[in-house]
Amino acid sequence: MKLATLGNHARDGRLVVVSRDLTRAVDASAFAPTMQFAIEHWAQAEPQLRSLSDRLNDGKAVGAFAFDPAQALSPLPRTHQFVDASAFLNHGNIMEQAYDLNVKKTPGIPVLVQRQSDDFWPPMADYPLLSEADNGDFEGEFAVVVDDTPMAGTPEACASRIRLVTILNDVSLRAHLFRELQMGFGFINAKPATVFAPVAVTPDELGDAWGADGRIHLEMRVSRNGAWFGHPNGREMDWSFGELLAHLALNRNLRAGTILGTGTVSNIAAREVGSACLAEKRALEKLDRGESVTPFLKWGDRLRFEVFGADGQSVFGAVDHRFVPFTPAS
Amino acid sequence: MKLATLGNHARDGRLVVVSRDLTRAVDASAFAPTMQFAIEHWAQAEPQLRSLSDRLNDGKAVGAFAFDPAQALSPLPRTHQFVDASAFLNHGNIMEQAYDLNVKKTPGIPVLVQRQSDDFWPPMADYPLLSEADNGDFEGEFAVVVDDTPMAGTPEACASRIRLVTILNDVSLRAHLFRELQMGFGFINAKPATVFAPVAVTPDELGDAWGADGRIHLEMRVSRNGAWFGHPNGREMDWSFGELLAHLALNRNLRAGTILGTGTVSNIAAREVGSACLAEKRALEKLDRGESVTPFLKWGDRLRFEVFGADGQSVFGAVDHRFVPFTPAS
Repeated sequence: MKLATLGNHARDGRLVVVSRDLTRAVDASAFAPTMQFAIEHWAQAEPQLRSLSDRLNDGKAVGAFAFDPAQALSPLPRTHQFVDASAFLNHGNIMEQAYDLNVKKTPGIPVLVQRQSDDFWPPMADYPLLSEADNGDFEGEFAVVVDDTPMAGTPEACASRIRLVTILNDVSLRAHLFRELQMGFGFINAKPATVFAPVAVTPDELGDAWGADGRIHLEMRVSRNGAWFGHPNGREMDWSFGELLAHLALNRNLRAGTILGTGTVSNIAAREVGSACLAEKRALEKLDRGESVTPFLKWGDRLRFEVFGADGQSVFGAVDHRFVPFTPAS
Repeated sequence: MKLATLGNHARDGRLVVVSRDLTRAVDASAFAPTMQFAIEHWAQAEPQLRSLSDRLNDGKAVGAFAFDPAQALSPLPRTHQFVDASAFLNHGNIMEQAYDLNVKKTPGIPVLVQRQSDDFWPPMADYPLLSEADNGDFEGEFAVVVDDTPMAGTPEACASRIRLVTILNDVSLRAHLFRELQMGFGFINAKPATVFAPVAVTPDELGDAWGADGRIHLEMRVSRNGAWFGHPNGREMDWSFGELLAHLALNRNLRAGTILGTGTVSNIAAREVGSACLAEKRALEKLDRGESVTPFLKWGDRLRFEVFGADGQSVFGAVDHRFVPFTPAS
């Protein structure tokens, strides 16, 4: 089942079911007015939404209309918790090696970062960047959305609460990031609004790519201004989603709608498969030839993030957006 | 005007207006079903809620009932963004001096920490602590709640979006905190559920204590197991609320319901007026006599945080809670 949100991005929007091929949608408000409501009432809403989804995929849904991803919001335009992991250790290792960073990680404990969840940007809307001097960057990631998840659960118990999967561009401002990382308190100015793909899907939509190892075995395809940038695979995540969630829920309940991101997808073979962020490519350039040549984000740059299933179908639709100067009216 | 929330703490609860003396309440759902709704529709809801508040304070509200703070939830049982500042530099200075910490702050830039906002604990409910070995601590703080606040606003513009004021106990687990601070990515296991006072108030309820300098000129009274622990004053904050909000909103919009906490209230005269957290008292003990003697939280400990106005009236009611062992059923 594939779900999306249309409407007012400053609030919760309204829920639609989207066809598997992403061409058609149908209003779902008779069963769940919003994505948040659907997750909070999953036991009741899921069978009704699945039935509607089946009718839509069979061409029999009354009131179906053409799905325009340019009108879609982030699946949850806002939620009550967003935590981003840094679950591909390969990425951190490259960064630490290139910049002599001394990040005092504890072996075995995943790095998670508490993030803002009040204003996720629409997937195809122009994205206002305050300044090119902030060294703007992107990070292509997978994410899961969970239902209420009780405190202190096992990785298996936590994983059983996963309801939806999607992808995101974790927009990052590296000029702020290094300053804030050194301070210790996580990110504030380094992380402006995050941008999710037009569609969130139930894990079964991934088929075998929703691995028994709790990882997503699909490539994150990233392009910049139409040119290939990378296609690292989600299967190299160093922790399963269940393990990441269990660390987060160690001593507190997670409430319905909590989003957990994977951190930028990164593979050992990054020099061949490319990266999902500029910083990693720049770090590899520094290591390999002594200097970084790939520029940070410029106004006018267009980024695209998309994931295809085994059948060649785009799973989540694309984050596909242009970075533009900020104007107070935007 | 004083507002509170009753009902299901895992969701949004339902809004009530509370009398100035905190003894009576009346359902406000005809005007705003929840606190979140009230903030999102402030222009329409505020005059209606104020009118109801006037009737309640005059003893003329139909359907008024006794207000029991033990039934109250955190005013926003959940919201879409919670950011905690460390806005009393005195606290950080004491900690850095006592423990030879090297926090690389940039002079003039306030420290803010992005925090979870999905599950705020009720103000008088027993609080489950997983382990005494986590070095549990409290932090008495003030907080403001803002309406939609556009990106890149001035401190004055941001301050004009403040709708409500309250207090909180920012429960902190120091054993995790030092590990996570060194790593750089902020707090995950160090900060379990946060606990707000039963009542949030509009700034006018503070009278002159809502200072023209954008600070709250009132004492945070903290007691542990019935014994005085401290009464530091909010007026020594090193940034105004407007300045803190402007830093947060530098490159992103803040959506209605965003909560900004001040960080633990701390005064230069901490040795006389006491502290609002154990860690600061322990640090002063280490500096003054070579060792910390005040113990971290024990199961069974009872903490109380309360603020009184110039008229001697409790402004927000009290966070007054007991720390208990965690059981999976709780």
